[in-house]
Amino acid sequence: MTEYKLPSYLSWERPHPGFFLAFEGPDGGGKSTQAARLADWLREDDEFDVVTCRDPGSTPLGNRLRELLLERSELHPTLRAEMLLFMASRAQLVEDVIRPALAAGRVVICDRFLLSNIVYQGVAGGLPIDEIARVGQVATGGLLPDLTLVLNVSRDTAKSRIGAARDRLEDRPESYHAQVNKGFSNALDLMIVGPEGCPYYPSPMTTIDASKDADDVARQIRKAVANALRLGSRP
Amino acid sequence: MTEYKLPSYLSWERPHPGFFLAFEGPDGGGKSTQAARLADWLREDDEFDVVTCRDPGSTPLGNRLRELLLERSELHPTLRAEMLLFMASRAQLVEDVIRPALAAGRVVICDRFLLSNIVYQGVAGGLPIDEIARVGQVATGGLLPDLTLVLNVSRDTAKSRIGAARDRLEDRPESYHAQVNKGFSNALDLMIVGPEGCPYYPSPMTTIDASKDADDVARQIRKAVANALRLGSRP
Repeated sequence: MTEYKLPSYLSWERPHPGFFLAFEGPDGGGKSTQAARLADWLREDDEFDVVTCRDPGSTPLGNRLRELLLERSELHPTLRAEMLLFMASRAQLVEDVIRPALAAGRVVICDRFLLSNIVYQGVAGGLPIDEIARVGQVATGGLLPDLTLVLNVSRDTAKSRIGAARDRLEDRPESYHAQVNKGFSNALDLMIVGPEGCPYYPSPMTTIDASKDADDVARQIRKAVANALRLGSRP
Repeated sequence: MTEYKLPSYLSWERPHPGFFLAFEGPDGGGKSTQAARLADWLREDDEFDVVTCRDPGSTPLGNRLRELLLERSELHPTLRAEMLLFMASRAQLVEDVIRPALAAGRVVICDRFLLSNIVYQGVAGGLPIDEIARVGQVATGGLLPDLTLVLNVSRDTAKSRIGAARDRLEDRPESYHAQVNKGFSNALDLMIVGPEGCPYYPSPMTTIDASKDADDVARQIRKAVANALRLGSRP
């Protein structure tokens, strides 16, 4: 792998005793289900102490901001305000939940993280990606997942799965969701493309076709995670 | 005045047809009162169409976030989350209120702005000032006040004025408030000190001793504003 010299504002921090996994992708890709299945699978092994969380959410502040961000209301946040609210929730999640767990050697499985802002407000919304990456670096204190699993799914499949469970972001026009899907499908590019020859999202990433059967998707996820955790083959 | 070459992340935007004034300083310095007096004074002249606002606040989202930031609750935001919530509120205020007013040639008088984050979460809280400046640049889209009026007041005077109207930030220990006061007293340094030889806050700034009589403070403010607006002498 090429070694990048990161400018100071993108010098993402690494190792800790634990392992940080993030599930990303459009709504309707089965992230929550697959995150729970993966947690159960890892817990079969006494070696792993697994913590699950979701972003935004998983702290009292995060839950309040999640409501504010995803429920339909008269607040009408602008795209920048929306992005900064996600970041505020993430800052709280990282400091109160994720960092302590990683420091204690736990495996953290998080439903969404910074890549969602890059795709929803950046690729699809039009905010400059380098601005989101810069704010993200400040919000997380430089923490990125040790592995990001992107579950890609076609818009038609996603819509049939989401059904009536639509939130405020889901209300945006189909052209927006087409850009979201494209952003997640091309997410690997973000590992290598960025300003000054450095990547926006310098974190190991695996993209998975989540339109398939859930058992098949779970198998692909376990394989990627086993590889990252250097587990050797397990059933 | 020295001309600075700003790095891209600190290239603050300037002119617009209007004029953007911010009042800054510790609580108890009379910012709200003086902002209202200044607005009244400017409105005596038909030339000026004056808009007043406060940060955080002055939008439905901002008012909700203001409650969340300043009321005592069980949410316990971390310093980073707190800073990002102020920024989210500011992003909304800039896009929905301040920019449209400036574009229409109005005079905007805002009670607090970015300098408060630099002082409260940076100087006093310990977050790196360059991180706050970077996020601030994204939140405001590069907008800084055309004139920042810093009302400095001793902690004793401030406390006697604040009385029972204490908010969540006011509950912090006296050592924190000593740092806040020091930060605002030294605010002029932020115009000239910063990374890569460029200032954190490259905006004209006047510091005023607000411990004095309110009429005297109002006179000093009018003088600074008349000068900035090139009004010539007025009563």
